[in-house]
Amino acid sequence: MRPLILHDYPGSGNCYKARLTAALLGLPLERRVYDMLGGKTRTEDFLGTVNNNGRVPVLQVADRYLPESNAICLYLAEGSRLIPADPLDRADMYRWMFFEQNGHEPHIATLRLWLGYVGEANLSDAQRAQVPAKRHSGEDALRVMNEHLAARDWFAGNALSLADIALYAYTHVAEEGGFALDPYPHVRAWLARIAATPGYIALRD
Amino acid sequence: MRPLILHDYPGSGNCYKARLTAALLGLPLERRVYDMLGGKTRTEDFLGTVNNNGRVPVLQVADRYLPESNAICLYLAEGSRLIPADPLDRADMYRWMFFEQNGHEPHIATLRLWLGYVGEANLSDAQRAQVPAKRHSGEDALRVMNEHLAARDWFAGNALSLADIALYAYTHVAEEGGFALDPYPHVRAWLARIAATPGYIALRD
Repeated sequence: MRPLILHDYPGSGNCYKARLTAALLGLPLERRVYDMLGGKTRTEDFLGTVNNNGRVPVLQVADRYLPESNAICLYLAEGSRLIPADPLDRADMYRWMFFEQNGHEPHIATLRLWLGYVGEANLSDAQRAQVPAKRHSGEDALRVMNEHLAARDWFAGNALSLADIALYAYTHVAEEGGFALDPYPHVRAWLARIAATPGYIALRD
Repeated sequence: MRPLILHDYPGSGNCYKARLTAALLGLPLERRVYDMLGGKTRTEDFLGTVNNNGRVPVLQVADRYLPESNAICLYLAEGSRLIPADPLDRADMYRWMFFEQNGHEPHIATLRLWLGYVGEANLSDAQRAQVPAKRHSGEDALRVMNEHLAARDWFAGNALSLADIALYAYTHVAEEGGFALDPYPHVRAWLARIAATPGYIALRD
């Protein structure tokens, strides 16, 4: 396999998805770390070469650059046990990965960034105005997850898949954004199952 | 193939993605239409059976229910020409499908719903407070798309793929949410290419 370079930010849950996927599969990743909060993913060079969307993670494969955390995980895990073989189970995996990017990350990850990293006092008026809606939507995402996990151990199929990795990344640090996980016992049990998986690495390893 | 039932709302771009994918591939879909704005995807029966996230589209395959528009497209198009064969091109397709759900749909589709369907006068204070941020992020998504299309005809690989279908759904009606497409000539040329594809159907067919 060609060498894989991850353009990375250590505190980012999206970057962590790629590192956790690679760790579980035993794939070596070379890391290039950016000071994201210091604007280093918004420089002219970064925008022109790595990602014109100004974000990490980006996976570099030779001269190709692949943004979007869940797309990176799908590329890394192609043909592995982290992708269910059955077409409908695989579709379920995609379902939860899209749910994560649409119904979970914009609320739970954003409040973690704003409240846990930027700081409430430093938010713009436009950001502060969005907090209540993001709080409500984030709690709804946790409810949907908890209900789904009531009768099953993993999100798709009968084993850990990329759906679990995608949703784990920001759920296990949701409290940094002010989300209490006490009301979601099935989510908490599932978080513990993932952390007990052989090959697991922590966000800040 | 088992009969495919689409739980559907005619004006929804997300539902349209599934119908357009099926039409381009010649797959028959049986439609079950819900009055989404009238709350018919939030009934106890719908939440308990079809989707506990209270949304359409949902693809029903026998007794299995698959939510999330892009997951439905991936299931319908498995093994078809709408998914690039090369692994990195396929990863690029995923990239743009996740970008659509994270960086495009929450802004462009939501403003279309709020301003074009619900009506500005009927928005809650929490919704109204989010409009400027969604306007800004939606315009940034159109910029990113326009730059990507400057040197290529399609989002991933060298042919129309699910990435184009996913991004087409709400881009081609972005003006209903108050987004002007004049500043994005490469986007407009790409919209015309998709509408000229054999088998194409319109959103409100």
